[in-house]
Amino acid sequence: MTADTKLTTVAVLGLGQVGTSIALALRAKGVRVLLADHDRLAVSAAVRRGAGECLDESALPADLLVMSVSPAAVPETLLLAQANNLASAYTDVAGVKAAPTTRARQLGCDMSEFVPGHPIGEDVPSPARADLFTGRMWALCEEESTRPDVVTRARRLVELCGAVPVLMDTETHDRFVALVSHVPYLLASAMAGALGTVPGEAVPPRHSPVRDVTGPAAAEPEPWIETLHQNARWVTGVLSEIAADLVDVCAALQLASSGDDSYLDEVAALLRRGHAGWRRLTEDDRPGSS
Amino acid sequence: MTADTKLTTVAVLGLGQVGTSIALALRAKGVRVLLADHDRLAVSAAVRRGAGECLDESALPADLLVMSVSPAAVPETLLLAQANNLASAYTDVAGVKAAPTTRARQLGCDMSEFVPGHPIGEDVPSPARADLFTGRMWALCEEESTRPDVVTRARRLVELCGAVPVLMDTETHDRFVALVSHVPYLLASAMAGALGTVPGEAVPPRHSPVRDVTGPAAAEPEPWIETLHQNARWVTGVLSEIAADLVDVCAALQLASSGDDSYLDEVAALLRRGHAGWRRLTEDDRPGSS
Repeated sequence: MTADTKLTTVAVLGLGQVGTSIALALRAKGVRVLLADHDRLAVSAAVRRGAGECLDESALPADLLVMSVSPAAVPETLLLAQANNLASAYTDVAGVKAAPTTRARQLGCDMSEFVPGHPIGEDVPSPARADLFTGRMWALCEEESTRPDVVTRARRLVELCGAVPVLMDTETHDRFVALVSHVPYLLASAMAGALGTVPGEAVPPRHSPVRDVTGPAAAEPEPWIETLHQNARWVTGVLSEIAADLVDVCAALQLASSGDDSYLDEVAALLRRGHAGWRRLTEDDRPGSS
Repeated sequence: MTADTKLTTVAVLGLGQVGTSIALALRAKGVRVLLADHDRLAVSAAVRRGAGECLDESALPADLLVMSVSPAAVPETLLLAQANNLASAYTDVAGVKAAPTTRARQLGCDMSEFVPGHPIGEDVPSPARADLFTGRMWALCEEESTRPDVVTRARRLVELCGAVPVLMDTETHDRFVALVSHVPYLLASAMAGALGTVPGEAVPPRHSPVRDVTGPAAAEPEPWIETLHQNARWVTGVLSEIAADLVDVCAALQLASSGDDSYLDEVAALLRRGHAGWRRLTEDDRPGSS
Protein backbone atom coordinates (compact mmCIF):
# COMPACT_ATOMS: atom_id res chain seq x y z
CA MET A 1 0.00 0.00 0.00
CA THR A 2 1.39 3.39 -1.01
CA ALA A 3 0.85 6.60 0.94
CA ASP A 4 -1.65 7.50 -1.76
CA THR A 5 -3.99 4.68 -0.95
CA LYS A 6 -3.70 4.44 2.80
CA LEU A 7 -6.91 4.87 4.79
CA THR A 8 -5.80 6.64 7.93
CA THR A 9 -8.79 8.94 8.25
CA VAL A 10 -12.27 8.26 6.84
CA ALA A 11 -15.23 10.61 7.09
CA VAL A 12 -18.72 9.11 7.23
CA LEU A 13 -21.57 11.39 6.29
CA GLY A 14 -25.02 10.09 7.26
CA LEU A 15 -25.31 8.01 10.41
CA GLY A 16 -28.18 5.64 9.78
CA GLN A 17 -27.74 1.89 10.13
CA VAL A 18 -25.38 1.62 7.15
CA GLY A 19 -23.22 4.66 7.87
CA THR A 20 -22.83 3.85 11.56
CA SER A 21 -22.04 0.20 10.77
CA ILE A 22 -19.29 1.28 8.36
CA ALA A 23 -17.90 3.59 11.03
CA LEU A 24 -17.94 0.80 13.63
CA ALA A 25 -16.20 -1.60 11.24
CA LEU A 26 -13.48 0.95 10.48
CA ARG A 27 -12.95 1.78 14.15
CA ALA A 28 -12.54 -1.92 14.88
CA LYS A 29 -9.63 -1.88 12.40
CA GLY A 30 -8.04 1.19 14.01
CA VAL A 31 -9.03 3.73 11.35
CA ARG A 32 -9.71 7.27 12.53
CA VAL A 33 -13.37 7.98 11.74
CA LEU A 34 -14.92 11.44 11.46
CA LEU A 35 -18.69 11.48 11.85
CA ALA A 36 -21.21 13.91 10.37
CA ASP A 37 -24.98 14.04 10.03
CA HIS A 38 -27.64 16.72 9.62
CA ASP A 39 -28.99 15.40 12.92
CA ARG A 40 -26.64 16.35 15.76
CA LEU A 41 -28.24 13.77 18.02
CA ALA A 42 -27.31 11.05 15.54
CA VAL A 43 -23.69 12.20 15.72
CA SER A 44 -23.54 12.15 19.51
CA ALA A 45 -25.27 8.74 19.59
CA ALA A 46 -22.70 7.35 17.15
CA VAL A 47 -19.82 8.85 19.12
CA ARG A 48 -21.19 7.25 22.30
CA ARG A 49 -21.36 3.90 20.49
CA GLY A 50 -17.65 4.19 19.71
CA ALA A 51 -18.18 4.75 15.98
CA GLY A 52 -15.67 7.63 15.88
CA GLU A 53 -15.40 11.31 16.67
CA CYS A 54 -17.28 14.42 15.67
CA LEU A 55 -15.98 15.76 12.34
CA ASP A 56 -13.07 18.08 13.09
CA GLU A 57 -12.00 20.47 10.36
CA SER A 58 -8.35 20.25 11.37
CA ALA A 59 -8.38 16.54 10.39
CA LEU A 60 -9.52 17.31 6.83
CA PRO A 61 -9.22 16.43 4.03
CA ALA A 62 -9.96 12.80 4.95
CA ASP A 63 -8.45 10.00 2.87
CA LEU A 64 -11.98 8.97 1.91
CA LEU A 65 -15.46 10.33 2.50
CA VAL A 66 -18.36 7.85 2.56
CA MET A 67 -21.76 9.36 1.76
CA SER A 68 -24.43 7.26 3.42
CA VAL A 69 -27.39 9.21 2.09
CA SER A 70 -30.36 8.44 -0.16
CA PRO A 71 -29.74 8.04 -3.92
CA ALA A 72 -31.30 11.40 -4.77
CA ALA A 73 -29.15 13.19 -2.18
CA VAL A 74 -25.81 11.82 -3.48
CA PRO A 75 -25.09 14.37 -6.27
CA GLU A 76 -25.61 17.54 -4.22
CA THR A 77 -23.84 16.04 -1.21
CA LEU A 78 -20.83 15.20 -3.37
CA LEU A 79 -20.79 18.66 -4.95
CA LEU A 80 -20.84 20.37 -1.56
CA ALA A 81 -18.25 18.04 -0.06
CA GLN A 82 -15.86 18.59 -2.94
CA ALA A 83 -16.41 22.36 -2.81
CA ASN A 84 -15.29 22.21 0.83
CA ASN A 85 -12.41 19.82 0.05
CA LEU A 86 -13.58 17.41 2.76
CA ALA A 87 -11.63 14.46 1.32
CA SER A 88 -9.32 13.40 -1.46
CA ALA A 89 -11.60 10.52 -2.51
CA TYR A 90 -15.36 9.94 -2.32
CA THR A 91 -17.74 7.02 -2.43
CA ASP A 92 -21.39 6.41 -1.57
CA VAL A 93 -23.54 3.45 -0.52
CA ALA A 94 -26.89 4.26 -2.15
CA GLY A 95 -28.94 1.46 -3.71
CA VAL A 96 -29.15 2.99 -7.20
CA LYS A 97 -26.06 4.00 -9.16
CA ALA A 98 -26.68 5.24 -12.73
CA ALA A 99 -29.08 8.17 -12.27
CA PRO A 100 -27.25 9.76 -9.28
CA THR A 101 -23.88 9.36 -11.05
CA THR A 102 -25.20 10.99 -14.22
CA ARG A 103 -26.66 13.81 -12.15
CA ALA A 104 -23.37 14.32 -10.28
CA ARG A 105 -21.56 14.64 -13.61
CA GLN A 106 -24.18 17.13 -14.83
CA LEU A 107 -23.71 19.19 -11.66
CA GLY A 108 -20.00 19.45 -12.39
CA CYS A 109 -18.69 17.20 -9.63
CA ASP A 110 -15.08 16.06 -10.06
CA MET A 111 -15.78 12.51 -11.18
CA SER A 112 -12.11 11.51 -11.02
CA GLU A 113 -12.39 11.54 -7.21
CA PHE A 114 -15.66 9.60 -6.94
CA VAL A 115 -16.37 5.88 -7.18
CA PRO A 116 -20.05 4.97 -6.68
CA GLY A 117 -20.49 2.01 -4.33
CA HIS A 118 -23.24 -0.16 -2.85
CA PRO A 119 -23.12 -2.92 -0.24
CA ILE A 120 -25.73 -5.25 -1.73
CA GLY A 121 -28.05 -7.27 0.46
CA GLU A 122 -31.11 -7.00 2.57
CA ASP A 123 -31.10 -4.09 4.96
CA VAL A 124 -33.29 -5.63 7.63
CA PRO A 125 -34.09 -3.20 10.40
CA SER A 126 -31.48 -3.85 13.08
CA PRO A 127 -29.12 -1.73 15.13
CA ALA A 128 -25.86 -0.72 13.48
CA ARG A 129 -23.09 -3.26 13.99
CA ALA A 130 -19.48 -3.66 12.90
CA ASP A 131 -20.13 -6.97 11.14
CA LEU A 132 -23.16 -5.86 9.13
CA PHE A 133 -21.28 -6.32 5.84
CA THR A 134 -19.34 -9.49 6.57
CA GLY A 135 -19.26 -11.65 3.45
CA ARG A 136 -21.58 -9.34 1.53
CA MET A 137 -21.02 -8.35 -2.08
CA TRP A 138 -20.18 -4.66 -2.34
CA ALA A 139 -20.49 -3.19 -5.81
CA LEU A 140 -17.95 -0.56 -6.90
CA CYS A 141 -18.81 1.22 -10.12
CA GLU A 142 -15.47 2.47 -11.39
CA GLU A 143 -15.75 4.66 -14.47
CA GLU A 144 -13.10 5.57 -17.05
CA SER A 145 -12.71 8.94 -15.39
CA THR A 146 -12.13 7.50 -11.90
CA ARG A 147 -8.58 7.91 -10.59
CA PRO A 148 -7.06 4.48 -9.83
CA ASP A 149 -6.02 5.44 -6.30
CA VAL A 150 -9.63 6.41 -5.56
CA VAL A 151 -10.79 2.91 -6.53
CA THR A 152 -8.01 1.40 -4.42
CA ARG A 153 -9.16 3.37 -1.38
CA ALA A 154 -12.79 2.34 -1.89
CA ARG A 155 -11.70 -1.31 -2.23
CA ARG A 156 -9.77 -0.95 1.00
CA LEU A 157 -12.90 0.40 2.70
CA VAL A 158 -14.91 -2.59 1.48
CA GLU A 159 -12.25 -5.03 2.68
CA LEU A 160 -12.02 -3.34 6.09
CA CYS A 161 -15.79 -3.83 6.37
CA GLY A 162 -15.32 -7.55 5.68
CA ALA A 163 -17.22 -7.39 2.39
CA VAL A 164 -16.29 -8.61 -1.10
CA PRO A 165 -15.66 -5.84 -3.65
CA VAL A 166 -17.20 -6.53 -7.08
CA LEU A 167 -16.44 -4.12 -9.92
CA MET A 168 -19.38 -3.49 -12.24
CA ASP A 169 -20.63 -0.52 -14.23
CA THR A 170 -23.56 1.51 -12.96
CA GLU A 171 -26.03 0.08 -15.50
CA THR A 172 -25.09 -3.51 -14.67
CA HIS A 173 -25.53 -2.71 -10.99
CA ASP A 174 -28.92 -1.11 -11.48
CA ARG A 175 -30.22 -3.96 -13.64
CA PHE A 176 -28.95 -6.43 -11.05
CA VAL A 177 -30.68 -4.76 -8.10
CA ALA A 178 -33.85 -4.37 -10.20
CA LEU A 179 -33.83 -8.17 -10.67
CA VAL A 180 -32.87 -9.27 -7.19
CA SER A 181 -34.53 -6.58 -5.12
CA HIS A 182 -36.63 -3.80 -6.69
CA VAL A 183 -38.89 -5.88 -8.94
CA PRO A 184 -39.35 -8.69 -6.37
CA TYR A 185 -40.39 -6.00 -3.89
CA LEU A 186 -43.00 -4.67 -6.34
CA LEU A 187 -44.35 -8.19 -6.99
CA ALA A 188 -44.57 -8.76 -3.24
CA SER A 189 -46.45 -5.47 -2.81
CA ALA A 190 -48.89 -6.18 -5.64
CA MET A 191 -49.60 -9.68 -4.26
CA ALA A 192 -49.99 -8.47 -0.67
CA GLY A 193 -52.27 -5.67 -1.86
CA ALA A 194 -54.56 -8.23 -3.49
CA LEU A 195 -55.12 -9.98 -0.15
CA GLY A 196 -57.63 -7.40 1.06
CA THR A 197 -60.54 -9.69 0.39
CA VAL A 198 -59.37 -13.06 1.70
CA PRO A 199 -62.46 -14.69 3.22
CA GLY A 200 -62.60 -13.93 6.93
CA GLU A 201 -62.46 -17.41 8.37
CA ALA A 202 -59.76 -18.62 6.01
CA VAL A 203 -56.27 -17.77 7.23
CA PRO A 204 -53.41 -18.41 4.83
CA PRO A 205 -51.40 -21.34 6.21
CA ARG A 206 -48.08 -20.43 7.78
CA HIS A 207 -46.15 -22.20 5.04
CA SER A 208 -48.25 -21.21 2.05
CA PRO A 209 -46.65 -19.66 -1.05
CA VAL A 210 -48.29 -16.31 -0.33
CA ARG A 211 -46.15 -15.92 2.78
CA ASP A 212 -42.92 -16.35 0.82
CA VAL A 213 -43.97 -14.12 -2.03
CA THR A 214 -45.28 -11.26 0.11
CA GLY A 215 -42.35 -11.31 2.56
CA PRO A 216 -40.52 -8.30 1.08
CA ALA A 217 -43.66 -6.14 1.51
CA ALA A 218 -42.70 -6.06 5.21
CA ALA A 219 -40.44 -3.11 4.34
CA GLU A 220 -41.60 0.42 5.05
CA PRO A 221 -42.82 1.85 1.71
CA GLU A 222 -41.47 5.40 1.96
CA PRO A 223 -37.74 4.91 1.19
CA TRP A 224 -38.70 2.57 -1.66
CA ILE A 225 -40.57 5.24 -3.61
CA GLU A 226 -37.35 7.17 -4.25
CA THR A 227 -35.36 4.02 -4.99
CA LEU A 228 -37.88 2.84 -7.59
CA HIS A 229 -38.02 6.32 -9.10
CA GLN A 230 -34.23 6.57 -9.34
CA ASN A 231 -34.02 3.13 -10.93
CA ALA A 232 -37.14 3.54 -13.08
CA ARG A 233 -35.31 2.55 -16.26
CA TRP A 234 -34.30 -0.93 -15.14
CA VAL A 235 -37.27 -1.54 -12.87
CA THR A 236 -39.67 -0.89 -15.73
CA GLY A 237 -37.46 -2.86 -18.14
CA VAL A 238 -37.61 -5.99 -15.99
CA LEU A 239 -41.12 -5.51 -14.63
CA SER A 240 -42.78 -4.85 -17.98
CA GLU A 241 -41.55 -8.22 -19.26
CA ILE A 242 -42.83 -10.01 -16.18
CA ALA A 243 -46.18 -8.20 -16.38
CA ALA A 244 -46.44 -9.19 -20.05
CA ASP A 245 -45.74 -12.83 -19.11
CA LEU A 246 -48.52 -12.70 -16.53
CA VAL A 247 -50.98 -11.14 -18.98
CA ASP A 248 -50.10 -13.92 -21.46
CA VAL A 249 -50.66 -16.60 -18.82
CA CYS A 250 -54.08 -15.14 -18.01
CA ALA A 251 -55.04 -15.23 -21.69
CA ALA A 252 -53.72 -18.77 -22.12
CA LEU A 253 -55.60 -20.04 -19.05
CA GLN A 254 -58.80 -18.39 -20.25
CA LEU A 255 -58.46 -19.94 -23.70
CA ALA A 256 -57.61 -23.32 -22.17
CA SER A 257 -60.68 -23.19 -19.96
CA SER A 258 -62.76 -22.44 -23.04
CA GLY A 259 -61.76 -25.86 -24.24
CA ASP A 260 -58.49 -25.53 -26.14
CA ASP A 261 -55.90 -27.32 -24.03
CA SER A 262 -53.11 -26.46 -26.46
CA TYR A 263 -52.78 -23.11 -24.71
CA LEU A 264 -51.59 -24.91 -21.60
CA ASP A 265 -48.25 -25.34 -23.37
CA GLU A 266 -47.65 -21.61 -22.86
CA VAL A 267 -48.43 -21.92 -19.17
CA ALA A 268 -46.16 -24.95 -18.91
CA ALA A 269 -43.33 -23.05 -20.63
CA LEU A 270 -43.54 -20.22 -18.09
CA LEU A 271 -43.57 -22.67 -15.17
CA ARG A 272 -40.59 -24.62 -16.54
CA ARG A 273 -38.62 -21.44 -17.19
CA GLY A 274 -39.38 -20.36 -13.63
CA HIS A 275 -38.35 -23.67 -12.13
CA ALA A 276 -35.09 -23.57 -14.12
CA GLY A 277 -34.47 -20.02 -12.89
CA TRP A 278 -35.11 -21.05 -9.29
CA ARG A 279 -32.76 -24.01 -9.68
CA ARG A 280 -29.99 -21.81 -11.07
CA LEU A 281 -30.51 -19.30 -8.28
CA THR A 282 -30.22 -21.88 -5.53
CA GLU A 283 -27.41 -23.90 -7.11
CA ASP A 284 -25.42 -20.77 -7.70
CA ASP A 285 -24.53 -19.95 -4.11
CA ARG A 286 -20.95 -18.97 -4.53
CA PRO A 287 -18.85 -17.00 -2.06
CA GLY A 288 -19.62 -13.32 -2.16
CA SER A 289 -23.32 -13.81 -1.58
CA SER A 290 -24.43 -13.05 1.92
CA MET B 1 -71.95 -40.14 17.35
CA THR B 2 -74.69 -42.27 15.80
CA ALA B 3 -74.12 -45.49 13.89
CA ASP B 4 -74.71 -43.43 10.76
CA THR B 5 -71.69 -41.26 11.28
CA LYS B 6 -69.21 -43.68 12.78
CA LEU B 7 -65.94 -44.17 10.89
CA THR B 8 -65.12 -47.81 11.41
CA THR B 9 -63.79 -48.50 7.94
CA VAL B 10 -62.31 -45.90 5.60
CA ALA B 11 -61.06 -46.59 2.07
CA VAL B 12 -58.22 -44.48 0.73
CA LEU B 13 -57.83 -44.36 -3.02
CA GLY B 14 -54.52 -42.95 -4.23
CA LEU B 15 -51.44 -43.52 -2.10
CA GLY B 16 -49.22 -40.53 -2.69
CA GLN B 17 -47.96 -38.42 0.20
CA VAL B 18 -51.42 -37.10 1.12
CA GLY B 19 -53.37 -40.37 0.78
CA THR B 20 -50.80 -42.39 2.71
CA SER B 21 -50.57 -39.73 5.43
CA ILE B 22 -54.37 -39.81 5.87
CA ALA B 23 -54.22 -43.60 6.10
CA LEU B 24 -51.44 -43.44 8.70
CA ALA B 25 -53.35 -40.87 10.76
CA LEU B 26 -56.49 -43.02 10.70
CA ARG B 27 -54.61 -46.18 11.62
CA ALA B 28 -53.07 -44.35 14.58
CA LYS B 29 -56.65 -43.76 15.80
CA GLY B 30 -57.63 -47.42 15.32
CA VAL B 31 -59.71 -47.00 12.17
CA ARG B 32 -59.68 -49.88 9.70
CA VAL B 33 -58.13 -48.55 6.49
CA LEU B 34 -58.54 -50.15 3.07
CA LEU B 35 -55.87 -49.10 0.58
CA ALA B 36 -56.12 -48.86 -3.21
CA ASP B 37 -53.99 -47.39 -5.98
CA HIS B 38 -53.49 -47.98 -9.70
CA ASP B 39 -49.91 -48.78 -8.77
CA ARG B 40 -49.79 -52.12 -6.93
CA LEU B 41 -46.31 -51.33 -5.61
CA ALA B 42 -47.68 -48.20 -3.93
CA VAL B 43 -50.26 -50.37 -2.16
CA SER B 44 -47.73 -52.88 -0.86
CA ALA B 45 -45.40 -50.08 0.22
CA ALA B 46 -48.24 -48.44 2.17
CA VAL B 47 -49.24 -51.77 3.74
CA ARG B 48 -45.63 -52.32 4.82
CA ARG B 49 -45.59 -48.85 6.39
CA GLY B 50 -48.60 -49.81 8.50
CA ALA B 51 -51.03 -47.54 6.63
CA GLY B 52 -53.69 -50.23 6.39
CA GLU B 53 -54.59 -53.32 4.39
CA CYS B 54 -55.15 -54.05 0.74
CA LEU B 55 -58.74 -53.19 -0.26
CA ASP B 56 -60.86 -56.27 0.42
CA GLU B 57 -64.28 -56.43 -1.26
CA SER B 58 -65.80 -58.21 1.69
CA ALA B 59 -65.18 -55.10 3.82
CA LEU B 60 -67.18 -52.86 1.47
CA PRO B 61 -69.00 -50.54 1.41
CA ALA B 62 -66.66 -48.49 3.58
CA ASP B 63 -68.07 -45.76 5.85
CA LEU B 64 -66.12 -43.22 3.83
CA LEU B 65 -63.96 -43.29 0.71
CA VAL B 66 -61.22 -40.66 0.40
CA MET B 67 -60.13 -39.97 -3.17
CA SER B 68 -56.56 -38.74 -3.10
CA VAL B 69 -56.26 -38.13 -6.83
CA SER B 70 -55.64 -35.09 -9.03
CA PRO B 71 -58.47 -32.55 -9.48
CA ALA B 72 -59.23 -33.68 -13.03
CA ALA B 73 -59.46 -37.34 -11.96
CA VAL B 74 -61.98 -36.73 -9.16
CA PRO B 75 -65.25 -36.82 -11.19
CA GLU B 76 -64.61 -40.11 -13.05
CA THR B 77 -63.14 -41.70 -9.92
CA LEU B 78 -66.26 -40.78 -7.96
CA LEU B 79 -68.56 -42.06 -10.71
CA LEU B 80 -66.80 -45.40 -10.86
CA ALA B 81 -66.59 -45.75 -7.07
CA GLN B 82 -70.31 -45.06 -6.69
CA ALA B 83 -71.16 -47.48 -9.52
CA ASN B 84 -69.31 -50.16 -7.54
CA ASN B 85 -70.86 -49.06 -4.23
CA LEU B 86 -67.43 -48.84 -2.60
CA ALA B 87 -68.66 -46.62 0.23
CA SER B 88 -71.67 -44.88 1.69
CA ALA B 89 -69.94 -41.46 1.72
CA TYR B 90 -67.22 -39.88 -0.41
CA THR B 91 -64.75 -37.05 -0.14
CA ASP B 92 -61.63 -35.95 -1.96
CA VAL B 93 -58.51 -33.91 -1.15
CA ALA B 94 -57.77 -32.22 -4.48
CA GLY B 95 -56.55 -28.62 -4.50
CA VAL B 96 -59.36 -27.27 -6.71
CA LYS B 97 -63.02 -27.71 -5.86
CA ALA B 98 -65.51 -25.96 -8.18
CA ALA B 99 -64.69 -27.36 -11.63
CA PRO B 100 -64.35 -31.02 -10.53
CA THR B 101 -67.57 -30.77 -8.50
CA THR B 102 -69.47 -29.31 -11.44
CA ARG B 103 -68.11 -32.01 -13.70
CA ALA B 104 -69.09 -34.75 -11.21
CA ARG B 105 -72.64 -33.42 -11.20
CA GLN B 106 -72.67 -33.35 -15.01
CA LEU B 107 -71.48 -36.97 -15.09
CA GLY B 108 -74.45 -37.97 -12.97
CA CYS B 109 -72.62 -38.75 -9.72
CA ASP B 110 -74.82 -38.96 -6.63
CA MET B 111 -73.92 -35.63 -5.09
CA SER B 112 -75.80 -36.35 -1.86
CA GLU B 113 -73.02 -38.78 -0.91
CA PHE B 114 -70.08 -36.51 -1.78
CA VAL B 115 -68.49 -33.64 0.11
CA PRO B 116 -65.50 -32.08 -1.65
CA GLY B 117 -62.58 -31.52 0.72
CA HIS B 118 -59.04 -30.10 0.73
CA PRO B 119 -56.38 -30.03 3.44
CA ILE B 120 -54.92 -26.59 2.73
CA GLY B 121 -51.23 -25.90 3.13
CA GLU B 122 -47.93 -26.41 1.47
CA ASP B 123 -47.30 -29.94 0.29
CA VAL B 124 -43.55 -29.90 0.62
CA PRO B 125 -41.96 -33.06 -0.72
CA SER B 126 -41.57 -35.29 2.33
CA PRO B 127 -42.39 -38.88 3.17
CA ALA B 128 -45.96 -39.59 4.25
CA ARG B 129 -46.50 -39.21 8.00
CA ALA B 130 -49.40 -39.47 10.39
CA ASP B 131 -49.05 -35.88 11.63
CA LEU B 132 -48.89 -34.23 8.20
CA PHE B 133 -52.18 -32.41 8.79
CA THR B 134 -51.81 -31.46 12.46
CA GLY B 135 -53.28 -28.00 13.00
CA ARG B 136 -53.91 -27.46 9.29
CA MET B 137 -57.09 -25.92 7.94
CA TRP B 138 -59.09 -28.51 5.97
CA ALA B 139 -61.79 -27.09 3.73
CA LEU B 140 -65.08 -29.02 3.40
CA CYS B 141 -67.35 -27.76 0.65
CA GLU B 142 -70.78 -28.92 1.73
CA GLU B 143 -73.48 -28.24 -0.86
CA GLU B 144 -77.26 -28.08 -0.44
CA SER B 145 -77.52 -31.55 -1.91
CA THR B 146 -75.01 -33.09 0.51
CA ARG B 147 -76.53 -35.47 3.07
CA PRO B 148 -75.77 -34.22 6.62
CA ASP B 149 -74.34 -37.57 7.76
CA VAL B 150 -71.86 -37.42 4.87
CA VAL B 151 -70.58 -34.06 6.10
CA THR B 152 -70.38 -35.41 9.65
CA ARG B 153 -68.24 -38.33 8.48
CA ALA B 154 -65.92 -36.03 6.52
CA ARG B 155 -65.60 -33.76 9.57
CA ARG B 156 -64.73 -36.80 11.65
CA LEU B 157 -62.02 -37.73 9.12
CA VAL B 158 -60.54 -34.23 9.35
CA GLU B 159 -60.55 -34.33 13.16
CA LEU B 160 -58.96 -37.80 13.24
CA CYS B 161 -56.20 -36.34 11.05
CA GLY B 162 -55.65 -33.57 13.63
CA ALA B 163 -56.79 -30.84 11.25
CA VAL B 164 -59.35 -28.06 11.63
CA PRO B 165 -62.47 -28.43 9.47
CA VAL B 166 -63.61 -25.18 7.83
CA LEU B 167 -66.86 -25.17 5.87
CA MET B 168 -66.82 -23.04 2.73
CA ASP B 169 -68.41 -23.25 -0.67
CA THR B 170 -66.37 -24.42 -3.65
CA GLU B 171 -66.04 -20.94 -5.17
CA THR B 172 -64.83 -19.41 -1.89
CA HIS B 173 -62.30 -22.22 -1.60
CA ASP B 174 -61.02 -21.78 -5.13
CA ARG B 175 -60.69 -18.02 -4.79
CA PHE B 176 -58.86 -18.53 -1.49
CA VAL B 177 -56.31 -20.98 -2.90
CA ALA B 178 -55.87 -18.75 -5.96
CA LEU B 179 -54.88 -15.94 -3.57
CA VAL B 180 -52.72 -17.84 -1.14
CA SER B 181 -51.17 -20.42 -3.42
CA HIS B 182 -51.87 -20.49 -7.17
CA VAL B 183 -51.25 -16.83 -8.02
CA PRO B 184 -48.21 -16.51 -5.70
CA TYR B 185 -46.79 -19.56 -7.44
CA LEU B 186 -47.26 -17.92 -10.86
CA LEU B 187 -45.62 -14.70 -9.64
CA ALA B 188 -42.70 -16.73 -8.29
CA SER B 189 -42.36 -18.52 -11.62
CA ALA B 190 -42.48 -15.34 -13.68
CA MET B 191 -39.87 -13.69 -11.42
CA ALA B 192 -37.58 -16.72 -11.42
CA GLY B 193 -37.91 -17.01 -15.19
CA ALA B 194 -36.68 -13.43 -15.56
CA LEU B 195 -33.42 -14.29 -13.78
CA GLY B 196 -31.91 -15.93 -16.86
CA THR B 197 -29.66 -12.99 -17.52
CA VAL B 198 -28.35 -12.03 -14.10
CA PRO B 199 -24.77 -10.85 -14.66
CA GLY B 200 -22.38 -13.75 -14.16
CA GLU B 201 -20.28 -12.48 -11.29
CA ALA B 202 -23.20 -11.04 -9.35
CA VAL B 203 -24.88 -13.61 -7.16
CA PRO B 204 -28.13 -12.59 -5.50
CA PRO B 205 -27.46 -12.26 -1.76
CA ARG B 206 -28.81 -15.06 0.37
CA HIS B 207 -31.32 -12.77 2.05
CA SER B 208 -32.38 -10.70 -0.94
CA PRO B 209 -36.07 -10.22 -1.81
CA VAL B 210 -35.68 -12.34 -4.94
CA ARG B 211 -35.06 -15.41 -2.79
CA ASP B 212 -38.32 -14.96 -0.89
CA VAL B 213 -40.39 -14.17 -3.95
CA THR B 214 -39.08 -17.03 -6.11
CA GLY B 215 -39.26 -19.64 -3.32
CA PRO B 216 -42.49 -21.30 -4.51
CA ALA B 217 -40.94 -21.91 -7.96
CA ALA B 218 -39.05 -24.75 -6.24
CA ALA B 219 -42.12 -26.91 -6.91
CA GLU B 220 -42.11 -29.32 -9.84
CA PRO B 221 -44.12 -27.62 -12.62
CA GLU B 222 -46.05 -30.63 -13.99
CA PRO B 223 -48.78 -31.07 -11.34
CA TRP B 224 -49.31 -27.31 -11.31
CA ILE B 225 -50.39 -27.14 -14.94
CA GLU B 226 -53.55 -29.11 -14.22
CA THR B 227 -54.24 -27.23 -10.99
CA LEU B 228 -54.02 -23.86 -12.72
CA HIS B 229 -56.16 -25.12 -15.58
CA GLN B 230 -58.85 -26.45 -13.22
CA ASN B 231 -58.86 -23.18 -11.27
CA ALA B 232 -58.50 -20.96 -14.33
CA ARG B 233 -61.49 -18.83 -13.39
CA TRP B 234 -60.17 -17.61 -10.05
CA VAL B 235 -56.49 -17.67 -10.99
CA THR B 236 -57.13 -15.37 -13.94
CA GLY B 237 -59.51 -13.25 -11.85
CA VAL B 238 -56.87 -12.54 -9.21
CA LEU B 239 -53.84 -12.54 -11.52
CA SER B 240 -55.31 -10.19 -14.11
CA GLU B 241 -55.80 -7.53 -11.42
CA ILE B 242 -52.25 -7.92 -10.18
CA ALA B 243 -50.87 -7.83 -13.72
CA ALA B 244 -52.87 -4.65 -14.36
CA ASP B 245 -51.42 -3.11 -11.19
CA LEU B 246 -47.91 -3.95 -12.39
CA VAL B 247 -48.55 -2.50 -15.85
CA ASP B 248 -49.84 0.68 -14.16
CA VAL B 249 -46.74 0.91 -11.98
CA CYS B 250 -44.51 0.59 -15.03
CA ALA B 251 -46.37 3.40 -16.76
CA ALA B 252 -46.29 5.59 -13.64
CA LEU B 253 -42.53 5.06 -13.14
CA GLN B 254 -41.88 5.86 -16.79
CA LEU B 255 -43.91 9.07 -16.58
CA ALA B 256 -42.24 10.00 -13.29
CA SER B 257 -38.80 9.52 -14.81
CA SER B 258 -39.84 11.79 -17.68
CA GLY B 259 -40.09 14.51 -15.07
CA ASP B 260 -43.62 14.40 -13.64
CA ASP B 261 -43.20 13.29 -10.04
CA SER B 262 -46.96 13.35 -9.43
CA TYR B 263 -47.15 9.85 -10.90
CA LEU B 264 -45.14 8.58 -7.94
CA ASP B 265 -48.35 8.87 -5.91
CA GLU B 266 -49.68 5.86 -7.81
CA VAL B 267 -46.55 3.89 -7.01
CA ALA B 268 -46.77 4.94 -3.37
CA ALA B 269 -50.42 3.84 -3.22
CA LEU B 270 -49.53 0.34 -4.47
CA LEU B 271 -46.67 0.05 -1.97
CA ARG B 272 -48.81 1.20 0.94
CA ARG B 273 -51.64 -1.16 -0.01
CA GLY B 274 -49.08 -3.96 -0.17
CA HIS B 275 -47.56 -3.11 3.18
CA ALA B 276 -51.04 -3.00 4.76
CA GLY B 277 -51.84 -6.40 3.20
CA TRP B 278 -48.60 -7.86 4.53
CA ARG B 279 -49.33 -6.47 7.99
CA ARG B 280 -52.83 -7.98 8.00
CA LEU B 281 -51.45 -11.30 6.82
CA THR B 282 -48.84 -11.51 9.56
CA GLU B 283 -51.01 -10.11 12.35
CA ASP B 284 -53.78 -12.49 11.45
CA ASP B 285 -52.19 -15.71 12.62
CA ARG B 286 -55.12 -17.31 14.30
CA PRO B 287 -55.44 -20.98 15.21
CA GLY B 288 -56.32 -23.06 12.21
CA SER B 289 -53.42 -21.85 10.16
CA SER B 290 -50.53 -24.25 10.03
